[in-house]
Amino acid sequence: MTAHLLTIGDEILIGQIVDTNSAWMSRQLNLGGITVVGKSSVGDTRQAIIDGVQHAASTAQIVIMTGGLGPTKDDITKATLVEMFDCQVVFHQSVYDQIAAYFQKINRPIQVESVQSQAMLPDKATILPNKVGTASGMWFERDGKVFISLPGVPFEMEHLMNHEVLPRLKAQFPSRPIVHRTLQTACEGESVVAKRIEAFEDSLPEHIKLAYLPALGLVRLRLTGNWPGEVTSDSAARLTAELDKKKAELRALLPDLIFGEEDESLQEVVGRLLRQQGKQFGTAESCTGGYVAHLITLVPGSSDYFPGSVVSYSYEMKSKLLGVKDSTLSSFGAVSAEAVCEMAEGARGTLGVDISLAISGIAGPGGGMPDKPVGLVWMAVSDGQRTLVAKHIFGRDRAKNIHLTGIFALNMVRKFLLGEI
Amino acid sequence: MTAHLLTIGDEILIGQIVDTNSAWMSRQLNLGGITVVGKSSVGDTRQAIIDGVQHAASTAQIVIMTGGLGPTKDDITKATLVEMFDCQVVFHQSVYDQIAAYFQKINRPIQVESVQSQAMLPDKATILPNKVGTASGMWFERDGKVFISLPGVPFEMEHLMNHEVLPRLKAQFPSRPIVHRTLQTACEGESVVAKRIEAFEDSLPEHIKLAYLPALGLVRLRLTGNWPGEVTSDSAARLTAELDKKKAELRALLPDLIFGEEDESLQEVVGRLLRQQGKQFGTAESCTGGYVAHLITLVPGSSDYFPGSVVSYSYEMKSKLLGVKDSTLSSFGAVSAEAVCEMAEGARGTLGVDISLAISGIAGPGGGMPDKPVGLVWMAVSDGQRTLVAKHIFGRDRAKNIHLTGIFALNMVRKFLLGEI
Repeated sequence: MTAHLLTIGDEILIGQIVDTNSAWMSRQLNLGGITVVGKSSVGDTRQAIIDGVQHAASTAQIVIMTGGLGPTKDDITKATLVEMFDCQVVFHQSVYDQIAAYFQKINRPIQVESVQSQAMLPDKATILPNKVGTASGMWFERDGKVFISLPGVPFEMEHLMNHEVLPRLKAQFPSRPIVHRTLQTACEGESVVAKRIEAFEDSLPEHIKLAYLPALGLVRLRLTGNWPGEVTSDSAARLTAELDKKKAELRALLPDLIFGEEDESLQEVVGRLLRQQGKQFGTAESCTGGYVAHLITLVPGSSDYFPGSVVSYSYEMKSKLLGVKDSTLSSFGAVSAEAVCEMAEGARGTLGVDISLAISGIAGPGGGMPDKPVGLVWMAVSDGQRTLVAKHIFGRDRAKNIHLTGIFALNMVRKFLLGEI
Repeated sequence: MTAHLLTIGDEILIGQIVDTNSAWMSRQLNLGGITVVGKSSVGDTRQAIIDGVQHAASTAQIVIMTGGLGPTKDDITKATLVEMFDCQVVFHQSVYDQIAAYFQKINRPIQVESVQSQAMLPDKATILPNKVGTASGMWFERDGKVFISLPGVPFEMEHLMNHEVLPRLKAQFPSRPIVHRTLQTACEGESVVAKRIEAFEDSLPEHIKLAYLPALGLVRLRLTGNWPGEVTSDSAARLTAELDKKKAELRALLPDLIFGEEDESLQEVVGRLLRQQGKQFGTAESCTGGYVAHLITLVPGSSDYFPGSVVSYSYEMKSKLLGVKDSTLSSFGAVSAEAVCEMAEGARGTLGVDISLAISGIAGPGGGMPDKPVGLVWMAVSDGQRTLVAKHIFGRDRAKNIHLTGIFALNMVRKFLLGEI
C-alpha cells in the first residue's frame, strides 16, 4: 500500500510553521506497513488544492490531506472537496452535538454559527468524528483510491489518525504481519554506530530491515520485520520471536552505547533506575546552566528522586553553595577535574542527595583559552564512596554544546547507577 | 516570481527527520519577494526525482531541490540531473582543491575517491561553491526556468542559499523594493493579538501586509511592504520610512505585549536590560526545574549578569537553601503566594543578586488538588525593595506548562526591569 501526504495551508508555504505533522504521519503509516511515496504542500486556493489532490492521487493509492478545515474564510479544503467529489453538504446534528459537548467540556462559550458551519459536511464522505476539536475528518473513495481529509492542528490530526484513520486503513487493507523493535543509543554518531554493526546489518535476512534515526547525540535503531512467507495463525508470533532474537543480537553488539528500548528517554531511564534503587539525585551545573535539571524534571513524578539542584555559574556560587575551595579555583580554574570533583562532592551535602552530578565547561562562543578550548567540558558523578570524572571536547556551537553535555552527563549517571563504570 | 521546493530523500518519507529546511527557505525567499507556490518530497529513486522535478517545474519558475548530493550510493540526485539536462560530468580541479582545503581546516583525513567523486560535476550547470561541506550546489536553466540543486544538510544548504542562491536570484530577477519589520509579542495567543489590532490591519494599504507567526506563548508580527509605484532612486528609502511609521503605530497598540524587535529573544532582551542596568540576576525554581536558568544561560556572555540559580524541588531545599519558613510551607503549601515571595527574597541573599525570580507551581500531570489544579503557577520578582507576585493557570500538559511558565516569568522580569510593573 502506498500513500501520499498533502499539506494544505499558506502558513506552510511562507515558512510560518515547520511541518511536523507529515513526519509523524509517515512514521505511523510506516509502522502499519504503508509506504509513503510522496509528500506535498499547497496553498489555500481552490485550484492549488485540486491540482495537489490530483497530483497526489497520481502517485499513490491513499491520499491523506491535512489543513484548511477551520470555520474561517481562509479554510476552503472542505468546499473544494465537495466540488471535486460532486457532493451536497448536509447538516449533521450528531456532529453539532459533539462539538457543543466539546465546548462545554473545555468551558468555552459556543459560537453557534461557526459550530453550525462545522457540522455541515459532504453527503458522500464517511465522517470521522473529532473528539478534541471542531473539524471532523472526511473519508472519500473513488476509483479504488482513498482520500482522507484531516484538520492540521497536530493533536487533532494525531487523535483522528490513531482513533479513526489507522484502524480503518488496517481493516480495509489488511497487511501481512509486521513487527518493529527499537533500541536507543547515546554518545556516538550514526557513522560510528553503523560501522560497528555493519556485519550484523549485512547478515539480516531480506525481510528484516534496519533503520537509523539520528538526533544530536542520539541514534535510534529500528528493526522492522515483514512476514515473508504464507500467512498462518502463528506467523505473527514467529516473526515477533525472530525480531526479539535480532534485537538481542544487536544489543549484544553495542552494550556500551544502548541506553534503552522503544520510546523511553535517557532522563526517563535515569529516573527509573533512581526510583528502583531508592536513591536521591541532584545536580551542580555550571556551563549547562540548569539544562540537566530541566531534562530530569521534564519527567512526571521526578520529585520522588530529585530534591533540587544548584546552578553555580560564578566562582562565588561554586565556593559558597558547593564548598569548592578557593585554592582549587585559583590553581586549576573552574573548568578542571579538581573543581568538578569538589562540586560533585559538595552538591551531595548541599542538596542532601545520595548521588550527585557536577558539570563545568566552556560552552562558547567566547571564553576559550589555548589549553582550555571552547567545547571543553568536565563532568563528575559522586556517591560519597567514589567520584568518577570525565572530560569531553565538543564543538563550537553554544546550544549544541549544552545539549550534548546534557546527554553525555545523563548517560554517565546511568552507567554509574548500573555499576558499568 | 514563483518557486517550488523539492526535498529529495527517503529519510523524509519515512519520517526519520522533520524537514526544517523548507520552512527556512520559504522565509528567506519570501523576504526576497519570491513566492513559494508549492513544496514536495520524493524518495531517492531516479523515476521519483524525474517526476518530482517535472511536477515542480509545472507549478513555478524556479525549482529548488535539496538532498541526495552525498558521495554514497543512496545519493542519486546528481546522476539524475545529469541525465535530465543531457550533461556530461567533468572533473573540476578547483572544486577538488576546495574540498581538500575544507578537510584540512576541520582536521579530517581526505578520502580521495569520495572527494574525486564530489568534484565530478555536470558541464551544463553553473557550480555553486560549498565552503562548509563536500557537495557543490548546481544551477541549471532550461526554457526560461531555473533549477537549483543544494545539499540537504541544513547548515550547508543555508550557506549556499545565503552566499550563492539568493544573491544570484536577486541579480537575475531584480525585484521591486521590499521592506520587512518584525515585532515580537509574548503571553497572549494569536486570536487575542489579532482582535486588538484588527482596525490597524484593516487600515493597512494594499501594498503592506501583516503576517502572524505564532509559537507557544509567543506571536511574531511581520509587516512586509512592497513598493507599489514606479521605482525611482528614493523608492526604497520612502518605503522604509513608511514601514517604520507603521511599525511605530503597531507598537503603540500593543505596548504591554511587545517585548522586542526582529530576532531578539525574550532571554536576550532580559540579558540586555540587566547588562544596561548593571544588575545581577538569579532564579529560584521549583516546577520549572531549571528551565528559566537554562534559557538565561543559552545567551552568550550571560555569566556577566547571572551568577547562578537554585532549583528547589523539595520542601527541604526551599527551606534550607532559600530560607522559606516551615510555617509558611505548612500553612500555605509550596505553591502559594507566600512561599514564592519567601523564595524570591531568600534567593537574593543565597545567590547574592540584585534581582531574583522565584517560581512554584504544579506542572502536572499529577499533583493537582481541588483548590490547586494542575497548571497553577505562582511567580515572584524581588529587588529587595519590592516583591511582585503573579498567579497563572496554564493547561494540563507538563512540557507546555514548563515552557509557558518560562516565557511568562521572563516577561515579568523584563517589565520589572523596565519599571512597567
